[in-house]
Amino acid sequence: MSAPVTVYGPAISPAVARVAACLLEKDVPFQLQPVDMSKGEHKSPSFLKLQPFGQVPAFKDHLTTVFESRAICRYICDQYSDRGNRTLLGREEDGAVGRAAIEQWIESEAQAFNPPSLAIAFQLTFAPLMGRATDMAVVEQNQAKLAKVLDVYEQRLAESQYFAGDEFTLADLVHMPNTEILASKTETAGLITERKNLSRWWDEISGRPSWKKVVELQSVPRPSKS
Amino acid sequence: MSAPVTVYGPAISPAVARVAACLLEKDVPFQLQPVDMSKGEHKSPSFLKLQPFGQVPAFKDHLTTVFESRAICRYICDQYSDRGNRTLLGREEDGAVGRAAIEQWIESEAQAFNPPSLAIAFQLTFAPLMGRATDMAVVEQNQAKLAKVLDVYEQRLAESQYFAGDEFTLADLVHMPNTEILASKTETAGLITERKNLSRWWDEISGRPSWKKVVELQSVPRPSKS
Repeated sequence: MSAPVTVYGPAISPAVARVAACLLEKDVPFQLQPVDMSKGEHKSPSFLKLQPFGQVPAFKDHLTTVFESRAICRYICDQYSDRGNRTLLGREEDGAVGRAAIEQWIESEAQAFNPPSLAIAFQLTFAPLMGRATDMAVVEQNQAKLAKVLDVYEQRLAESQYFAGDEFTLADLVHMPNTEILASKTETAGLITERKNLSRWWDEISGRPSWKKVVELQSVPRPSKS
Repeated sequence: MSAPVTVYGPAISPAVARVAACLLEKDVPFQLQPVDMSKGEHKSPSFLKLQPFGQVPAFKDHLTTVFESRAICRYICDQYSDRGNRTLLGREEDGAVGRAAIEQWIESEAQAFNPPSLAIAFQLTFAPLMGRATDMAVVEQNQAKLAKVLDVYEQRLAESQYFAGDEFTLADLVHMPNTEILASKTETAGLITERKNLSRWWDEISGRPSWKKVVELQSVPRPSKS
């Protein structure tokens, strides 16, 4: 398989990082294709054919195109079922019940965890990159919302090693890009470290080779187009 | 199958209606179990075992419990694959590619459509029920956000009869509860009727017997507990 998979967008984007982490877990080779948002490439007709909302990531393999990071991750698990980590969406013998145990926490991430954690990530990481001031009132409002979600997570991770049971799954993986940002900022690291089980969970999963590779990809400066 | 499936929560909740619509499409018998939120039943220890965030719906069948409406819908399609509408998550012969074509629009609903449309639904429908004033500034802000999403949908539905192709799927179904509210309110009906293809799509899918039954369930007063 000679890099048949293309992910469009920068690794620094949490949604791009989510897809990259999934491809690395699945041992599916891929290339990251830059999208120059400062030049409006994400709103070009050719990009809108891949992603009609003009957002990153977009995804293409030899069979199809897919948008929305969590839909892309599910597709990678379903399509490349015989590669890499084969239990990200559950063991085949556990069927629909096993998949649902994972899906309910993927949805919790999308509905409950992502909105406040992405709002914080935007203020602390992306606003400064874009030359905007961080709005600490927005950070604080969203910290309060996020704390309630993390209290539920702490309880869950007291009962269970991972979100969906005793194996690392897509339910854990989808949380990683925003958790990385929270854990790396002095303003928000306490949200993780002050919760014993959440902290144990994060220490373990952030040490996975796939995630270390994502962090490495994020630290590489974007290639300039000269 | 004698009502082995229980959905916890009132049909008037968009997320409960989403699950009910899916069960009706799948021809899976179910009972709606009231949750008296005014008495805090959704925060009781027994309910939190079903739904750790204390929200509706929760779901139980003879095999498992599941929370989050979109996760429950996927589970119903996977677990009851041989009942009712068998192509809500795609035709078996279309495999992972067919499912991804549906999943990307389910995710668009969850990420792009639901936040502004639910905010509007809350202000126009649920705030008055709770004795609160409708905040028209919130309605207008979210109408502007939603209009951008609906412009993308209008384009999609110009190319395709349904979101994922020429069959009604879960991608269409997940949009129905909030669209019903938008279409039924004079303040927001124009968001749908002023878009030719979106309007054609809504006229058609809202006539499905499964959806008519959901609307009927929503119009039934909640049983009082005497």
